[in-house]
Amino acid sequence: MEIIQILDILGVIAFSISGVLAAMKKGMDIFGIHIIAFVTSVGGGTLRDILIQSEVIWLRDMTYIYAIVATTIFAIIFRKKLNYLRKSLFLFDTIGIGLYTVVGIEKGISVGLEPSICILLGTMSACFGGVIRDILCNEIPVIFHKEIYATACIFGGVIYFSLSYFNIPQIFVFISAGTAVIIVRISAVLFKIQLPKVYKTTNNP
Amino acid sequence: MEIIQILDILGVIAFSISGVLAAMKKGMDIFGIHIIAFVTSVGGGTLRDILIQSEVIWLRDMTYIYAIVATTIFAIIFRKKLNYLRKSLFLFDTIGIGLYTVVGIEKGISVGLEPSICILLGTMSACFGGVIRDILCNEIPVIFHKEIYATACIFGGVIYFSLSYFNIPQIFVFISAGTAVIIVRISAVLFKIQLPKVYKTTNNP
Amino acid sequence: MEIIQILDILGVIAFSISGVLAAMKKGMDIFGIHIIAFVTSVGGGTLRDILIQSEVIWLRDMTYIYAIVATTIFAIIFRKKLNYLRKSLFLFDTIGIGLYTVVGIEKGISVGLEPSICILLGTMSACFGGVIRDILCNEIPVIFHKEIYATACIFGGVIYFSLSYFNIPQIFVFISAGTAVIIVRISAVLFKIQLPKVYKTTNNP
Repeated sequence: MEIIQILDILGVIAFSISGVLAAMKKGMDIFGIHIIAFVTSVGGGTLRDILIQSEVIWLRDMTYIYAIVATTIFAIIFRKKLNYLRKSLFLFDTIGIGLYTVVGIEKGISVGLEPSICILLGTMSACFGGVIRDILCNEIPVIFHKEIYATACIFGGVIYFSLSYFNIPQIFVFISAGTAVIIVRISAVLFKIQLPKVYKTTNNP
Repeated sequence: MEIIQILDILGVIAFSISGVLAAMKKGMDIFGIHIIAFVTSVGGGTLRDILIQSEVIWLRDMTYIYAIVATTIFAIIFRKKLNYLRKSLFLFDTIGIGLYTVVGIEKGISVGLEPSICILLGTMSACFGGVIRDILCNEIPVIFHKEIYATACIFGGVIYFSLSYFNIPQIFVFISAGTAVIIVRISAVLFKIQLPKVYKTTNNP
Repeated sequence: MEIIQILDILGVIAFSISGVLAAMKKGMDIFGIHIIAFVTSVGGGTLRDILIQSEVIWLRDMTYIYAIVATTIFAIIFRKKLNYLRKSLFLFDTIGIGLYTVVGIEKGISVGLEPSICILLGTMSACFGGVIRDILCNEIPVIFHKEIYATACIFGGVIYFSLSYFNIPQIFVFISAGTAVIIVRISAVLFKIQLPKVYKTTNNP
């Protein structure tokens, strides 16, 4: 399906740029910037494929490498102008996580996994590129303490299996679940919603 | 063997809680806390299974996910009371590493690996969940500089292969090696034993 | 080919010592030091093998474990004298990355991957041991911001495929590409060449 490939590339572009920005903030050189862009884009899907013993997609499909390198060079050259693209980038990023969540879920289904594991894999596909990016940048992963991101993916996954349960056509389930991720994510940002944090108040005797 | 499943779940509970405590200390949100609990519990075994190209256990056996989520929610709710459980948790944790070490060793044997590699895999199964937890929390892994933990696993592994060498029945080898891990670990904590640290005194000319 | 095995072991020795030095700087205990030496030596190749679903080499070939443990113990005992070996170590390290790059490229070719992916895998084999070392030591990986290291590998990879294109004998391609990595790396250090860094000058309105 061609539309999915276009959405996929939009997601890769947004994820790469988020990697480039994180790497520049840490003063990395141009090699480091490419690597961070790369892991941010494909890290989540790679981890998913390793876990289910499936072949890692970017080993055979050169589109990813090309898209990442082109985006990274573009982002470095126009780094002073990236602020003007902020809203587009947020939109691409959100489309990316919506798509990756559903693609990850369907990969899990294709190897016969349970719904809750599929949702975990879908969430991982969408979110763990950013987690690896933050680890390589020596930061606590931002999705663990700041952003509604994974929650949107999990919500989309629940929608996916709820609709599947009622025998709704596959394409409609796919679109609805992806859209659910996107809506939750956009709402969370618009209304500045965060997950509750939990601190342990020490009461050592 | 049912007793092993019970010990396994006790280990998962203890490891999850250690993850929850680390995540709360870093002020993570409830999603982050679940993920840290998850990787602490299953990270070591997952890494082992990826290395030996075996299927990752929690993909098919839902017990792990359920135990981790239930433990995490429990630990968050009763976070102020966890200190009262400190000794039980330490015991469960120690039983967990004893069990995981021996299970890891036997997984290595089942794919035909040499004893020293099996001990390495067993130690990894028991310890690397905590290593991944510390990396995600942006800390130097505690077992690399503070705790007698891996040493107990390695000692248990040596006991395992020493007893196997003398054709002692399998079940006895299993129990003895696991118990050896537990005894070394508890002794180290009771007598405050640490491994020697090595600092390089600089003598640049 | 015996000469390759000798070069390989020289690389393992140099990589292990770089791990030992990093671990000692962080005040790790002797277990931690061994683990850091281990991941620095075999981490890159292990990641490559996991990505291409090939068996991890050190699981079956005990040479690596023996070389790493022996080197680590030697390096701990003679830690005050390691400065005298600095130049030899730099040379071994450089030979190591030259060799690992070419071996990684050939592994990629053997599973039918495209040249650019093979170069990526070769670079990963040579560099990611150090990346994992730095992550475990809670540092931003040094090759992302400071050293010409990966660039040398990528250059060697380009030489490899350029020469292969002209049907030059395999052994000559192997040696030339490896030597190219070594020359670039040594030149970069001699002439203090660094990759350009890119900082994003903030221009938030």
